[in-house]
Amino acid sequence: MIPEEVKFGADGLIPAVIQDANNGHVLMIGFMNKDALERTLSEGKVCFWSRSRQKFWVKGETSGNFLVVKEVFANCYVDSLLIKVDPVGPTCHAGYESCYYRKIQDDGLEIVAEQLFDPKKVYG
Amino acid sequence: MIPEEVKFGADGLIPAVIQDANNGHVLMIGFMNKDALERTLSEGKVCFWSRSRQKFWVKGETSGNFLVVKEVFANCYVDSLLIKVDPVGPTCHAGYESCYYRKIQDDGLEIVAEQLFDPKKVYG
Repeated sequence: MIPEEVKFGADGLIPAVIQDANNGHVLMIGFMNKDALERTLSEGKVCFWSRSRQKFWVKGETSGNFLVVKEVFANCYVDSLLIKVDPVGPTCHAGYESCYYRKIQDDGLEIVAEQLFDPKKVYG
Repeated sequence: MIPEEVKFGADGLIPAVIQDANNGHVLMIGFMNKDALERTLSEGKVCFWSRSRQKFWVKGETSGNFLVVKEVFANCYVDSLLIKVDPVGPTCHAGYESCYYRKIQDDGLEIVAEQLFDPKKVYG
């Protein structure tokens, strides 16, 4: 059940930071509407509202790389969430453990992580 | 310098997750406009655009609890950032190390962290 204090934005969405409960790595952020948060809490797999596709989305529904919910935290204003998860596989659709696989350097973006799968093979 | 790939949203803002580089704790998320990101990268202290106050904001300008930038990462869509920092003091204006000091339980929000300072004494 969603605590009554939780504040969704004017667009009906709340941002959620996803962190690997095992190694502390930040994996991604996504946005949830009320339905996505309710199902995340009740079903134990992270769900989002896709802003680009304008649809409900269970993270991992295509790749199988679900994010199993361990703990959910709210920030001081109760307008963002931190969700600690047990990830079934690499989180990023580009084939990396985390979506944050590139570092901003003085001369641009540099890939600093190892690619763990070929996106073409997973997403077709 | 901001890499040209970085995408600000329709509102001109990009969300940034702030993580303690020392212990891996997620401290907060905030939103940056172009100016706030430029100054974060060039000056080495995390700056935001405050959506509630509609103004530029150096995190720590009142409390002294600045967030010293160690590394900045971009996600796969280059529409969010992960910033690893060395925090000068507790990050949350409510007196906690992290803004995520409450856990969502079946019966509501439960404080699960220790309060490290009295907000009234720091913010007046």
